[in-house]
Amino acid sequence: MIYENESLEELGVNGYKIIQEKNGFRFGSDAVLLASFTEVKKNSVVLDLCTGSGIIPTLMASKEVSARFFGLEILSDVSKRATRSVELNSLSDRITIVTGDLKESLSYFKKASFDLVTCNPPYRRANCGVLCPNDSKAIAKHEILCTLDDVVKNASLLLKSKGHFTMVHRADRLSDIITTLLKYNLEPKRILFVASHIKKSPDLVLTDSVKDGSFDVLVLPTFYLYDEKGNYNPPMEANFKC
Amino acid sequence: MIYENESLEELGVNGYKIIQEKNGFRFGSDAVLLASFTEVKKNSVVLDLCTGSGIIPTLMASKEVSARFFGLEILSDVSKRATRSVELNSLSDRITIVTGDLKESLSYFKKASFDLVTCNPPYRRANCGVLCPNDSKAIAKHEILCTLDDVVKNASLLLKSKGHFTMVHRADRLSDIITTLLKYNLEPKRILFVASHIKKSPDLVLTDSVKDGSFDVLVLPTFYLYDEKGNYNPPMEANFKC
Repeated sequence: MIYENESLEELGVNGYKIIQEKNGFRFGSDAVLLASFTEVKKNSVVLDLCTGSGIIPTLMASKEVSARFFGLEILSDVSKRATRSVELNSLSDRITIVTGDLKESLSYFKKASFDLVTCNPPYRRANCGVLCPNDSKAIAKHEILCTLDDVVKNASLLLKSKGHFTMVHRADRLSDIITTLLKYNLEPKRILFVASHIKKSPDLVLTDSVKDGSFDVLVLPTFYLYDEKGNYNPPMEANFKC
Repeated sequence: MIYENESLEELGVNGYKIIQEKNGFRFGSDAVLLASFTEVKKNSVVLDLCTGSGIIPTLMASKEVSARFFGLEILSDVSKRATRSVELNSLSDRITIVTGDLKESLSYFKKASFDLVTCNPPYRRANCGVLCPNDSKAIAKHEILCTLDDVVKNASLLLKSKGHFTMVHRADRLSDIITTLLKYNLEPKRILFVASHIKKSPDLVLTDSVKDGSFDVLVLPTFYLYDEKGNYNPPMEANFKC
C-alpha cells in the first residue's frame, strides 16, 4: 500500500498512520494543534478544507466516534494518497476524501450543511518568496491556488448557522484573519496563540469562530510548545479547555 | 494644593505625583502598562485622549524629555485636577491639559498634527451593567460619553500619516478593536496581551498601530503581571522590547 517515495507516520492514537510523500509537503505540529483545539460535537458533520494528507480528519475521528468527516483537497495525487491512509486506518465509513477546488466548494457540497469546518491553509501570501509555483510544497505553503478570503468565504457558505469554523494560521496575519472572518459573518469566539516558549512571540494563532455568533472573544492562555526547562509540551486537547 | 476628598499617589519616577479623588475613578496598572508600552520619539507631539488624572502624559514625559504632551479630558473637574498635578510636578511647560469632548477633537486640535496619540478609553459597552450614568467612575469605565469608534476615528483624524496610535483595552474586545483600527486606516503593528499569570487568559490587550501602515503585525510575548512563584513583574519598558 506504500510506494517507494512515501513514508508512514504513526499518529500515536488508535494505531492510526498517515502516508506522506518523502520529498513533498509534510504535516507539522500545526495540524496536530488544530485537531486538538477543535471541539467535535456528537453526530456532527465535519469538513476539513485543504486536507492534504488527511491528518486533521483522522485525528478528529479519534476524538468523536459518532461524527462523519469529509476532506477536500485540490491536488489529485495528494488526495489519492489521503484516501489510501483512510483505508489503511479502516476509516472509510467515517472519512471521505474529495478531490476538488475549494473555490468551487458548492459543486461538491451543499450550502449550510456542515456543523464544523476546519482548515490548515497555505499561510503565506502568494508573492512572498515563491520559487516554484507548480510544486505541491509551494501550493501547501503559499496562497497560490487559494487565498485566506477564498477559504473563509467557502467555510462560511458551507456552515450551518451557529456552526463552527476552526483554523490555524500565522500570528502575524492576525488582523487579516479577524477582518476576513467578520466579513463572512464568522465571529471569533476562542483565540489561541502558540509560541515555542515563554520569551518568544507566538508564531501561530488558532481561531474558533461561530457563524452568526455574538460579539466578544475569549483569548486563551498562550500555549508554549516547550516549557522553561526545554521540555516538550504535547498539544493535547486538555491544554485548551477553559 | 490638595483637597480633603483627594489623595496623592507617588509614581516612583522623577518624584512625580498624581492627585486623585478618593472616591472617584482611580488609575490602575493598565495606565502604567500603556505608558511603558508606548514608544515616545524625540521632539514628538503627543496627545492622550480620555486623559483622566493625566497619569499617562506624566509617565511619558519622564521617558522622553524633548517631547510635548497634550491631554484631553471631557469632565472639567477631572481636567482641573489633572492640571493641578501637572503644576505640582513642574511640567506645565511640557504638558497641557485641555477640557473637551474627543468627538469634537478638531475644535481643539489641528487635523493630522500629532506624531503619537494614546488612549486608555472606557472599556465596557454602554449597555453593560451601567448603574449610574452620571457618575465620573461610570463615565471612565463605560462607553457613555464616547465609544471605541469615536476614540479611534478621532485618533486617526489627529495623527500625521505614519503616526502611531497606542491603546490599552479589554482582550475580549479584540475583534472590535482590530476592525475599528483598520476602518480608520490604523494598521496594528505590535500587539501585547497582558495576563495575571501564565495559566490565565489575558485580560488586557495593548495595540500600537500606524496610520497608513503596511500589513502584518508582531504579536509580542504575553506579559504576565505575576510570575509562577507569585512575584509581581513591574511593567517596565524593557519588558516590551522586541
